[in-house]
Amino acid sequence: MKDAVIGIDLGGIFTKFGIISMEGDILVESAVHTDLTDDFNIYISSLINAIDKTLVEIGNSVSIKGIGIGAPNANYKRGSIEFAPNLKWARNKVVYLAVPLQEHFRVPVVTTNNANAAAIGEMIYGNAKGVKNFFLVNLGMGLGSGIVVNGELVYGYDGFAGEIGHTCAKNNGRLCGCGQRGCLETYVSIQGIKRTVFELLVDYNGGSSLSKYSFDELTPEMIYKAASDGDKIALEAFRITGEILGIQLADSVAYFSPEKIFIFGSLARSGDFILKPTRESFEKNLFKIFKGKISIELSSLECSVYTVLAKTINSIPIELSSIAEGNVGMLGASALIWQELKD
Amino acid sequence: MKDAVIGIDLGGIFTKFGIISMEGDILVESAVHTDLTDDFNIYISSLINAIDKTLVEIGNSVSIKGIGIGAPNANYKRGSIEFAPNLKWARNKVVYLAVPLQEHFRVPVVTTNNANAAAIGEMIYGNAKGVKNFFLVNLGMGLGSGIVVNGELVYGYDGFAGEIGHTCAKNNGRLCGCGQRGCLETYVSIQGIKRTVFELLVDYNGGSSLSKYSFDELTPEMIYKAASDGDKIALEAFRITGEILGIQLADSVAYFSPEKIFIFGSLARSGDFILKPTRESFEKNLFKIFKGKISIELSSLECSVYTVLAKTINSIPIELSSIAEGNVGMLGASALIWQELKD
Repeated sequence: MKDAVIGIDLGGIFTKFGIISMEGDILVESAVHTDLTDDFNIYISSLINAIDKTLVEIGNSVSIKGIGIGAPNANYKRGSIEFAPNLKWARNKVVYLAVPLQEHFRVPVVTTNNANAAAIGEMIYGNAKGVKNFFLVNLGMGLGSGIVVNGELVYGYDGFAGEIGHTCAKNNGRLCGCGQRGCLETYVSIQGIKRTVFELLVDYNGGSSLSKYSFDELTPEMIYKAASDGDKIALEAFRITGEILGIQLADSVAYFSPEKIFIFGSLARSGDFILKPTRESFEKNLFKIFKGKISIELSSLECSVYTVLAKTINSIPIELSSIAEGNVGMLGASALIWQELKD
Repeated sequence: MKDAVIGIDLGGIFTKFGIISMEGDILVESAVHTDLTDDFNIYISSLINAIDKTLVEIGNSVSIKGIGIGAPNANYKRGSIEFAPNLKWARNKVVYLAVPLQEHFRVPVVTTNNANAAAIGEMIYGNAKGVKNFFLVNLGMGLGSGIVVNGELVYGYDGFAGEIGHTCAKNNGRLCGCGQRGCLETYVSIQGIKRTVFELLVDYNGGSSLSKYSFDELTPEMIYKAASDGDKIALEAFRITGEILGIQLADSVAYFSPEKIFIFGSLARSGDFILKPTRESFEKNLFKIFKGKISIELSSLECSVYTVLAKTINSIPIELSSIAEGNVGMLGASALIWQELKD
């Protein structure tokens, strides 16, 4: 019987999970909907049932040693999700996620936010192997980050370190879901770049293929496609997004003096459209003593899990951008619990 | 014979040093000028001579185990000072400070920036005893900071972590000595508040007691005195300074979720004039999950060393604001080397 853990990547739309070996092999994976209910108890029961089913499938070949979870606004110290704007059942409250899983599966459960989980995944399975000081930014619906100092993930006193999506990018800027104005994630995230496209449509008054979409219809893939076709507004939206991200990453360097910065998430898949302006703005805004020393790279764990997921969530149309980080999240969450078990 | 270390606080005008016991008692202290030469070799010789003289004075009662230095733009990993705008002999170059001291005194020498040294001092001798995650901001000629995560000072990959004076407070804001625009220290520091006073004088066109001073003459003590007398421009300058600092400290919390934040340095001595607007702006700008949880306090090590220094630097007029952090810096620098010797 082989030792394995359960890695859970809890996103706004889907919750993906996998049974994962110590080497990072995903032995089996599946998913449930995150957003079909606003009752946390109904959600957690559906997740437990789905995991149970997967365990029956895989049979006696593995022994589950623990569960690692990456989730929005997750608190490492309390095993909770707290005031997560993207989660119907945790929007205005604190839910204790670890407890029911621990009670049901009788193994240790560790929780952290998605970006922290991805940072650990990058450190154990990816390009951050051997890198002791780095920074990972997740450009998804919001903007999350994981900070690693001296080879250790920074949780902070309250367990909420790395919330750089809520640092101030523009004084009195765009209204954020958190209630503040000008937060970084109102500019640099899927929602952020959509807002920038619409701002540019207002300003330029036409001349873009993106003018035929509603705000709700518009996806990062559409913006990417338009930019590839030379659409000025799409290109400018990427440029602005990268410029703002570069400034903030330069600030983050002044705080932590990292060796490398990794970017992943939906927007990262736009490749040079986002990377090039980010790197330019980053280098331009870096404090002199850091210039030319720090690289910004794409996460190495980014890879497609569409096929597998399409099988498990059949009959539901799947928006690519919402699931492509699945592997990173699951691997990171599994790495989190492997590390915890080792300690 | 009692074990002791030498703690050196290297500032833009004076370099203060003390022979300090493990309990943090300053057995003897003295100082040399930092800014009388732009030749590093002349400066370092004068420092070595002054230390030698003090060692002769104290005689055989102590055995020196090491030297700790807090200095602007100091690099922990390389024992250097790099491109420090406030130091004539290191303005546009890298000087290796640790080497000549190590060669002369034949003991380990450890170097870090002033704010890092103060953070360690606060942790070992001050109000941060037992606090594992905190942040210390030094409001002097510039703005430095020391970050402590899990009880360890954060140096980062390149040894330059904590340079938050060079994070961006205002897009395209004031020109900074580092060449960038809008750096935090162009607003929040002695120079920063002086610039704000002058901006307000321009805007209000008179009606302030501060209008009789030139930029070079103006000191934080004059602004403090004016504010105490109810001068509108002085009060407004403190309010603006605190407001900007509060926003940036709220950002710093999003990065690493500290338990407490400590403020010291010349501006900190303005007490409520700076603390009140800082706390208000901080609380207002904090990301929801942190609100009401983190205190901003004055450094507990702040105390006057005027009398002692007045004796040692006699015949030279001493500007209060430039030396009052002497104890903190020396104690921090000594704590740094004590900690290093322990490890």
